[in-house]
Amino acid sequence: MLDQTDERLSQQLAFLTEIDKLKSVLRATTLCDGSRRENTGEHSWHIAMYALILAEHAKSPVNIDRVIKMLLIHDIVEIDAGDKPIHGSHDIAEMEAIEQAAADRIFGLLPEDQRKELRALWEEFEAAESDDAIFAKSVDRVQPVIANLETGGDSWLEYNVSRQQLEDRVGWKVAKGAPALWQHLQARIRNWFGARAE
Amino acid sequence: MLDQTDERLSQQLAFLTEIDKLKSVLRATTLCDGSRRENTGEHSWHIAMYALILAEHAKSPVNIDRVIKMLLIHDIVEIDAGDKPIHGSHDIAEMEAIEQAAADRIFGLLPEDQRKELRALWEEFEAAESDDAIFAKSVDRVQPVIANLETGGDSWLEYNVSRQQLEDRVGWKVAKGAPALWQHLQARIRNWFGARAE
Repeated sequence: MLDQTDERLSQQLAFLTEIDKLKSVLRATTLCDGSRRENTGEHSWHIAMYALILAEHAKSPVNIDRVIKMLLIHDIVEIDAGDKPIHGSHDIAEMEAIEQAAADRIFGLLPEDQRKELRALWEEFEAAESDDAIFAKSVDRVQPVIANLETGGDSWLEYNVSRQQLEDRVGWKVAKGAPALWQHLQARIRNWFGARAE
Repeated sequence: MLDQTDERLSQQLAFLTEIDKLKSVLRATTLCDGSRRENTGEHSWHIAMYALILAEHAKSPVNIDRVIKMLLIHDIVEIDAGDKPIHGSHDIAEMEAIEQAAADRIFGLLPEDQRKELRALWEEFEAAESDDAIFAKSVDRVQPVIANLETGGDSWLEYNVSRQQLEDRVGWKVAKGAPALWQHLQARIRNWFGARAE
């Protein structure tokens, strides 16, 4: 009995130590004070908080506990695959293959029951079809928008993003899961892009 | 109706933007690769993952969804109060007063219902009396132990920690909420302190 517990703990701690590396994966977005790029570990914490606080604005009712778990693990594959900035260009098929291999390896460190549970939750997030996943995607997409509005558009300037591109790549996804939230941000977004156009 | 939603969203986004600062609060512990100090934002993500993965080892059954929420918010007061290293020396009464004032200010940014809910959850964590809080404290305490074992004792060396001090300040708290977990780590801890003594 003790042996089985020790075996599970060894696998679980190996996984928890491995995912420490997510703190060293850098994203395109900066902190709200513009001082440095955000890493994926702290991003995962922040959007779990976004979900917790903004759940009432989900278009369809969500199970917030599932959404939070989904967001805690949603980017773990970036340990192997790296961050793919939303405004960058990528080979989607290649990226998906790399992420699937990363999921095999990293979730594979866990005991079988937990591997299956977290892998299924990650696949659900990626598919973006369930109400929980659609809302999770909304908060994942909206947090960099807020960081850009706070910093004066750090990553929007770097990637030369137009207002139409922001709508096409980000806006509809935020609005799909949390329409009131995207609506609420329109004035600030309009001001930022308006000031740039002058 | 729209006005009320906008008012709530303004308060909620002000809170979510404010807590971005937790990513700039540095802890005594380093990352598992020793490359830099860990910040409290990424720490909060990591221990939420610890709780999710290790819940089966809790001494008493816990509501893992509550534990995760508790851990996501447990250190938010550090935005004003800073991190207080477990192996440092502090004026406890002064520290508690500063943290209470920080909780007033930061949770006070939220709409009243959410302010009350999160403040109560934070007070429960601080009191460390409920089964959920006792387990949450265990994972909060054990994560730096693992980081020290991985890095070769970065913060233990810095604070000149003895094995007895580790037991007095950390071990009993980990063991109180997750006895099998602390037991499991004994061999690695013994090896580390044993190698130092030679």
